[in-house]
Amino acid sequence: MKTTLKEIKRRKMNNPILIEGLPGIGFVGKLVAELLVEELKAEKVAEIYSPHFPHHVIMSKTGVVRIMKNELYHVKRRKHDLLILVGEAQPVDTVGQYEVNELIIDYLKKKGGKLVVTIGGYGTGVITHDPRVFGAATEPELVQEYSEYGIEFGKTKGPIIGAAGLLLAIAKMKGLKGLCLMGETHGGYVDAKAAKKVLGVLSRILKITVATDKLDKKAAENEKMLAQIERAAQEETPETGESGLSYIR
Amino acid sequence: MKTTLKEIKRRKMNNPILIEGLPGIGFVGKLVAELLVEELKAEKVAEIYSPHFPHHVIMSKTGVVRIMKNELYHVKRRKHDLLILVGEAQPVDTVGQYEVNELIIDYLKKKGGKLVVTIGGYGTGVITHDPRVFGAATEPELVQEYSEYGIEFGKTKGPIIGAAGLLLAIAKMKGLKGLCLMGETHGGYVDAKAAKKVLGVLSRILKITVATDKLDKKAAENEKMLAQIERAAQEETPETGESGLSYIR
Amino acid sequence: MKTTLKEIKRRKMNNPILIEGLPGIGFVGKLVAELLVEELKAEKVAEIYSPHFPHHVIMSKTGVVRIMKNELYHVKRRKHDLLILVGEAQPVDTVGQYEVNELIIDYLKKKGGKLVVTIGGYGTGVITHDPRVFGAATEPELVQEYSEYGIEFGKTKGPIIGAAGLLLAIAKMKGLKGLCLMGETHGGYVDAKAAKKVLGVLSRILKITVATDKLDKKAAENEKMLAQIERAAQEETPETGESGLSYIR
Amino acid sequence: MKTTLKEIKRRKMNNPILIEGLPGIGFVGKLVAELLVEELKAEKVAEIYSPHFPHHVIMSKTGVVRIMKNELYHVKRRKHDLLILVGEAQPVDTVGQYEVNELIIDYLKKKGGKLVVTIGGYGTGVITHDPRVFGAATEPELVQEYSEYGIEFGKTKGPIIGAAGLLLAIAKMKGLKGLCLMGETHGGYVDAKAAKKVLGVLSRILKITVATDKLDKKAAENEKMLAQIERAAQEETPETGESGLSYIR
Repeated sequence: MKTTLKEIKRRKMNNPILIEGLPGIGFVGKLVAELLVEELKAEKVAEIYSPHFPHHVIMSKTGVVRIMKNELYHVKRRKHDLLILVGEAQPVDTVGQYEVNELIIDYLKKKGGKLVVTIGGYGTGVITHDPRVFGAATEPELVQEYSEYGIEFGKTKGPIIGAAGLLLAIAKMKGLKGLCLMGETHGGYVDAKAAKKVLGVLSRILKITVATDKLDKKAAENEKMLAQIERAAQEETPETGESGLSYIR
Repeated sequence: MKTTLKEIKRRKMNNPILIEGLPGIGFVGKLVAELLVEELKAEKVAEIYSPHFPHHVIMSKTGVVRIMKNELYHVKRRKHDLLILVGEAQPVDTVGQYEVNELIIDYLKKKGGKLVVTIGGYGTGVITHDPRVFGAATEPELVQEYSEYGIEFGKTKGPIIGAAGLLLAIAKMKGLKGLCLMGETHGGYVDAKAAKKVLGVLSRILKITVATDKLDKKAAENEKMLAQIERAAQEETPETGESGLSYIR
Repeated sequence: MKTTLKEIKRRKMNNPILIEGLPGIGFVGKLVAELLVEELKAEKVAEIYSPHFPHHVIMSKTGVVRIMKNELYHVKRRKHDLLILVGEAQPVDTVGQYEVNELIIDYLKKKGGKLVVTIGGYGTGVITHDPRVFGAATEPELVQEYSEYGIEFGKTKGPIIGAAGLLLAIAKMKGLKGLCLMGETHGGYVDAKAAKKVLGVLSRILKITVATDKLDKKAAENEKMLAQIERAAQEETPETGESGLSYIR
Repeated sequence: MKTTLKEIKRRKMNNPILIEGLPGIGFVGKLVAELLVEELKAEKVAEIYSPHFPHHVIMSKTGVVRIMKNELYHVKRRKHDLLILVGEAQPVDTVGQYEVNELIIDYLKKKGGKLVVTIGGYGTGVITHDPRVFGAATEPELVQEYSEYGIEFGKTKGPIIGAAGLLLAIAKMKGLKGLCLMGETHGGYVDAKAAKKVLGVLSRILKITVATDKLDKKAAENEKMLAQIERAAQEETPETGESGLSYIR
């Protein structure tokens, strides 16, 4: 099997913006992108298969297997269409990462797109009650333009690994532009709060309105769970005050 | 060397069902598939070679080397022929796993097959006296259909790794259907009892009768060995009651 | 994406000597090569992309991402032009290392070059106040010729890994010659002093004059930092006298 | 760079037997094969390059780099010519192992060869004063034939990894025959004694006479070193009697 983008519905698109939300730190990107697909009633237009995805299947609760793949969903909009990238997994090796992400950028370009927005988490190992949104971009002009949305640029350390970084790299090589939004997150659990903060910024950028009830509910559950853990940890180790968060990784 | 399926005997086949039993957890699949080959007097029709198999040879007790390969055996039957997949090893990397398993599905399809049944073990780290048979399938309809055979769906955690999972994934991508049977097993030894349970279910599905004397004998040896280990463990560490099973991994 | 050398400016070259300074031990090569690019006002003539570079992006202090690539800079000179190789990273796997380094040697050969000089660090784990310059070469004649420049041959142990070694290997296979200069360095920090020593030797070989103010400043900062660490270490563990250098790796 | 066999001298060969002696356990194969090349005044006929060899260069004592490659040497003989395979390294990954070893078998076949003899060490972690020679073969008939030379078949455990095993596997796939000779060795040092034992057996098989002075000298040095270590170990830990051999790995 070769790495393949299988177009399911051939749609004309109006200058689409690619929004990437694959599995990653705190599942911030995945939460945001899957909510967009659901709330904006996006239509699946393509599937991506690759021998560089993990060589296994995941099972649903009912015992039906899920194949490793990435999917592209389309939303028609007046000014800019959206192309939302979601999926089960990212490629397991370097060559696969380049192969799959280049295929996606080539598809975006063919459909007339010029901008990629990748979404990830920035793991700090610390629980934050008001997570920030960090950013990175392919050009200084984008840094300036998007700083106005409350995105903090140049505040993170280390590289941006996987699709969230590589889609920007390949976009730039091929003459497109790219922005990466990273929600500040502990990194040890699925973080709906960080996702909601990123979604807020993204909604203002894209001028869309999205119901966030589902994220709110998940965030409330998170809060409850974290409070419980903190209480338990304080009872057990009052002298150190460690949160014991490693239990819910 | 390229990954190659070398057809040894060109046989017309009657809607064959592929049964996979390569080395894996508890060697459950291997025990079942090799017994089927022997008891049903299956005929070898193809060999699969790949540079993704381990780069070594195994030696027999007499000093003759065994080459890493997979083999397909054919059984003629009235309603559905069988194609049984056995072998020394699975590919060592992701790309190799996709390559070899796709080749096998393509061969099955060419021969008119529509269903894959993969056999594996579900490792629990615990010795069970009445192992269950867990399942997974490519479609909800299959889950319903096969639940009647006593297969428990949706009860396992984690992905299905290697050929047992990937054959289902690739079958589904290519329009075929797939069922995975997993015998509940400790994981630390070759488990003839789990294999016998899976074979029972499989025999009813395929409407075949297979003498299980060889599995019974192996299972009895297992029981004896496990009883010894348990006794030894109880004598040595009566306070913890740990079974010491790690010794026979 | 294939490994690609993208020629940005097509220049005729006069028997160019390739100088390699990619990231490596003590960043000795990188410091030397980047100073040469700056001080000699070298002109970028080619960029190299590869799916074997790390699948991530690095961020600048302002939040602009840097794509993984290698670059070739050209300096016109009377007797021998220079082609200086700098970059963000080296390929992550063996096949990628051969691929990228062969591409570079092929380009050098096409431009009429016959000699490669690679620059690296030779890590000792020890802080040296007067670092030596070690060497290796593709031919005994080169060893003899360059020994006169104070380069010490045959004094290092272990292989030369990555571009610094492989460029020599591939050069030799293709009928070119190669010299490797290694600055003696601790290995745990960016070593401007070792870089300056190597630059001194290289300047005499190439008969160039390069202002080293920037290296001097960095080296002075290093000295200060090392002195501080040593003082701190002596205060804390006067009995062992360990330098505590691991803190600044 | 592709994996390439570069024929340096095109020689007609008389049913050559391939003797493999690449780096491996105890360097038994390498010692034997390099002695044969030297003592039989073998002529280099081919070099093998591959991007799957380690991406580094080794340095000689004088500072000249050695490129990673394998070499084939030819010896003209009345009944069977010899083709001796020596080299710096084996490929680092599975795909590379298959690629390089297949290339060598194809060359042997083209030159009219029908038999491969691979030489390795069988590591026991124990010092033996009279090392045995273990064997493995592609066919039961060979086991029988070569048992008469004092080779012990079916006495070793575990797979034969790398060229020593894979050359047999590929030979067999392509209709040739293969024999593996393994000298019993500690595994923690270069073992000239084991090499001499294997050479003795091989000489009788090939009906050749080879001066073993060099191996004898090395073996004597080994003995002395081992005696020293044993004495030192006995003085230090008289109660346990451990040999402390790990010091000379």
